[in-house]
Amino acid sequence: MTVSNWHTYLVTDASLSEGRTTLEIVRAAIDGGVDAIQLREKGTDARFRYELGRELRELTAEAGVDLIVNDRVDIARAIDADGVHVGQSDLPVAAVRDLLDPDAVVGCSTSTLGEARQAEADGADYLGVGTIYGTTSKDVAAEKDGVGPERVADIVASVSIPVVGIGGITAANAGPVVEAGATGVAVISEITAATDPAAATAALAEAVETAKTVED
Amino acid sequence: MTVSNWHTYLVTDASLSEGRTTLEIVRAAIDGGVDAIQLREKGTDARFRYELGRELRELTAEAGVDLIVNDRVDIARAIDADGVHVGQSDLPVAAVRDLLDPDAVVGCSTSTLGEARQAEADGADYLGVGTIYGTTSKDVAAEKDGVGPERVADIVASVSIPVVGIGGITAANAGPVVEAGATGVAVISEITAATDPAAATAALAEAVETAKTVED
Repeated sequence: MTVSNWHTYLVTDASLSEGRTTLEIVRAAIDGGVDAIQLREKGTDARFRYELGRELRELTAEAGVDLIVNDRVDIARAIDADGVHVGQSDLPVAAVRDLLDPDAVVGCSTSTLGEARQAEADGADYLGVGTIYGTTSKDVAAEKDGVGPERVADIVASVSIPVVGIGGITAANAGPVVEAGATGVAVISEITAATDPAAATAALAEAVETAKTVED
Repeated sequence: MTVSNWHTYLVTDASLSEGRTTLEIVRAAIDGGVDAIQLREKGTDARFRYELGRELRELTAEAGVDLIVNDRVDIARAIDADGVHVGQSDLPVAAVRDLLDPDAVVGCSTSTLGEARQAEADGADYLGVGTIYGTTSKDVAAEKDGVGPERVADIVASVSIPVVGIGGITAANAGPVVEAGATGVAVISEITAATDPAAATAALAEAVETAKTVED
């Protein structure tokens, strides 16, 4: 488990996949070099996520890609996922930590410095920070709707766990997020809604790599 | 843990409580002699159910009342509940069984003989059978919208685990469900929407007792 090596992280949402299955999108993302997958699929029932999760576990294990489950520790355990990601209205990080084996990964969505410090203190292994650029638009001009890369820099400066930026991130605007200190970037639509999800993943990975070179 | 002694079983739903909190309703139900509480509160987030669940655990433990969590094994474990109840679109019974300690109770909602047999084979400790009388009406005339007490009799005859009837059950129509072989009855609105939830619970308990006397 190398959270600090996550450059590209796909959060699944079949409702944005233009008719393709989540399995197809994830397979393409793996082809494009994705590092981690988060099974989210908000609004679907637990049985659906359990069945899908078992298929994703098979795919990701084969590819050496980490699989994280959103919100539900029980589904994560049942499908032998690598960890759980919670938001501020899900189970508290400390409770999630208690329910998982010590080597499981716990991630937490945070948008403020206070939330970030609390999540780290409670045992989170990484933070999802955002919304970076706002979720309804894909261009940098929408930055005012999000917390911006500056928030990533602030949080990175005050916690010692890896930070992944999320929200409105594309290959074109990923650079500043990584330059601000993020380990990588998490996306939904940039990969899920892309005509060629594998190419979109590769482009995103390249943008992260390029920014890391600049950073070094 | 004595599932076979559950006569009255309250499923929580704050949206039907006429402005009272779930904690108030549960406290009253305990005063009225309820045997088991199921934390459901569909549509609320996990954090809410976790916080509420911890309060319910304190109340129920003190009163010697069983506490079951709907759908989520993780919340059940985090609040040290006595078990989990799943429906047909939740995690499969076998997966839930695997995630819980051996002495935890697993219940499953079933409406057909096939589902009931499957749930028992997968390790369920009890079945919630229904909808008995339909959920929109409270009178026996609505029986045609539900599976009726006959379905309870059919299922009781073919499984060896306790059966609780659910759906449209009131003190006035609980009798036939128990006479059909149900251990007890589960309700939402009969207690939750009652002007006096404690009295409603006591009346329901009395109806079950009376039917059991007839049955013996």
